[in-house]
Amino acid sequence: MKLSQLGEFGLIETIRAATPKGRGVRLGIGDDAAWVEHPGRSSLITADLLIEGVHFDLRWTTLFDLGFKSLAVNLSDIAAMGGVPAYLILSLGIPADFDSKQIAEFYRGIGSLAAPSGVALIGGDTNLAEKFLISVCVLGHAPYRPIPRSGARVGDDIYVTGQLGDAALALTFLKNKKSAKRPDLLTRLLERHHRPTPRLAIGARLARDRLATAMIDVSDGLMQDLGHICEASGVGAAIACDNIPVSQAYRALSGRARMGYALTGGEDYELLFCAPPRQRQRIERLARRTKVAITRIGRCVTAKEKITVFSDSGRQVDVTAGGHDHFRTSKR
Amino acid sequence: MKLSQLGEFGLIETIRAATPKGRGVRLGIGDDAAWVEHPGRSSLITADLLIEGVHFDLRWTTLFDLGFKSLAVNLSDIAAMGGVPAYLILSLGIPADFDSKQIAEFYRGIGSLAAPSGVALIGGDTNLAEKFLISVCVLGHAPYRPIPRSGARVGDDIYVTGQLGDAALALTFLKNKKSAKRPDLLTRLLERHHRPTPRLAIGARLARDRLATAMIDVSDGLMQDLGHICEASGVGAAIACDNIPVSQAYRALSGRARMGYALTGGEDYELLFCAPPRQRQRIERLARRTKVAITRIGRCVTAKEKITVFSDSGRQVDVTAGGHDHFRTSKR
Repeated sequence: MKLSQLGEFGLIETIRAATPKGRGVRLGIGDDAAWVEHPGRSSLITADLLIEGVHFDLRWTTLFDLGFKSLAVNLSDIAAMGGVPAYLILSLGIPADFDSKQIAEFYRGIGSLAAPSGVALIGGDTNLAEKFLISVCVLGHAPYRPIPRSGARVGDDIYVTGQLGDAALALTFLKNKKSAKRPDLLTRLLERHHRPTPRLAIGARLARDRLATAMIDVSDGLMQDLGHICEASGVGAAIACDNIPVSQAYRALSGRARMGYALTGGEDYELLFCAPPRQRQRIERLARRTKVAITRIGRCVTAKEKITVFSDSGRQVDVTAGGHDHFRTSKR
Repeated sequence: MKLSQLGEFGLIETIRAATPKGRGVRLGIGDDAAWVEHPGRSSLITADLLIEGVHFDLRWTTLFDLGFKSLAVNLSDIAAMGGVPAYLILSLGIPADFDSKQIAEFYRGIGSLAAPSGVALIGGDTNLAEKFLISVCVLGHAPYRPIPRSGARVGDDIYVTGQLGDAALALTFLKNKKSAKRPDLLTRLLERHHRPTPRLAIGARLARDRLATAMIDVSDGLMQDLGHICEASGVGAAIACDNIPVSQAYRALSGRARMGYALTGGEDYELLFCAPPRQRQRIERLARRTKVAITRIGRCVTAKEKITVFSDSGRQVDVTAGGHDHFRTSKR
């Protein structure tokens, strides 16, 4: 079977089935980060391979932003387990016509997020390549029990941090070289696309206070990432479309797409998590303390009810487009 | 400055200078593996990025062997610190026309070395790519104090495990599609090229018994890797060319190259280490116990004397070709 038919998730299943779990491995392939446990200590490990032309386009991304984002998406995976990032291993494939100033700009972008996040670059590999390749691996600590994708129960509330859709909407402006009636608002969208904020403080608090039963970061789009939680937990979900938080810039610039990017657009790197209703007050308090919106957008139902999205008027919303599957080229 | 002028080691210096050392980081960029220390526990981390057309050629490498070797070269880095490997994080960029059988063959190659080495695959990332890309990160434990490159002292003996030159000599047969008068001997060379043996048991014993003062694995060629030890330790080296261990196959097939590949060919993945003369007996015993040759090839001299290679007749051997620098294209 060709990879294009097997799909990314089929491939992950193939790999998972072919490789036995090792000693000390609490969670292997298939969550946001791997979780390994040694006597008295738990570690989290996550990795991403970013390829020029597939994951980024140097025509509309600066090397500074690319450095920032390469680290941010991995810190977001650590946040989605409730962990604390510590070490960065960075391997680069670099085109021969790059100069050292460009590489320095990339590392400045990395450093601008690594320093405030307490992350140290400890190693990696550098090579010549035809296209720019970025392979990131982040190691973190798990001072509290990590939050997997698999713990959601029927009746749990479903929450999301921040706002959704900005990053994907920004990408359409970049790809189509469109300008906006409100350039100030477009600037805000672009910032969200280029420099997403990993929600480390919220993730760690949710783990410390054992508030969340399941968590993931929204990298492939709300519907797809919610699907991962539902599948891993054996539940369904009912989502109130009008409760999905979007920014002022999104409202002004999304046009006919309306809630489309918020529902299925990727790269927001917000946290999506489930929690029992008795935790509502504590979650509201956490939002106030961290000054980040945490919005209740639905609840977990039985697996038989699948995932449905409702409007305020009670009508079911048709969510056609899926999220992002790296091996299927026809989507989106 | 263009990367091709800066060179790989210039680039590593640029990165090292631009990024501060973090808490708990005992050895960061610039050794075989990074060494981080938590209360009561030390970890080793190493990474490699392998690119089709740069590091391997699918015309003369099976996917099984490629999987095996991708892991082997990283285990060799852990061995060169005296550590014990534990976890593998593997990210792949896969061309769309690969099928799932090919991927399974690659993972079987990985598994054939991971299982006997006690290594568990715990995560990674998979993507579509134009060329096959392999990004490997291996985490290990350091139950004993890791052996850095920097501990060699004037007067130390210099040793190497196994035999040198086979892998590089094999590559010339592959590249030139040459056959050999003795196909049985060529087969042995090719095995050494495709499935190098990480010297994990010897590395860990050298660390446990505190026998070695400095260690590296021979990946870029003896002269270049010896240069790394000398530079990090602030010493020079005098090498007895006729003592450098080569295989029967190498002797039969190296032709006019004579000791050339043994001196400067890469990819042997043997251990090169330094030890005080008082440890000679214990090192001989270690060789007998592990059934791997450990050969004394020279000794550390002052940095002012640089690195020199002598023949049995006392003449200085001219070692012209350097090892492998991924960013300089004119060499070799």
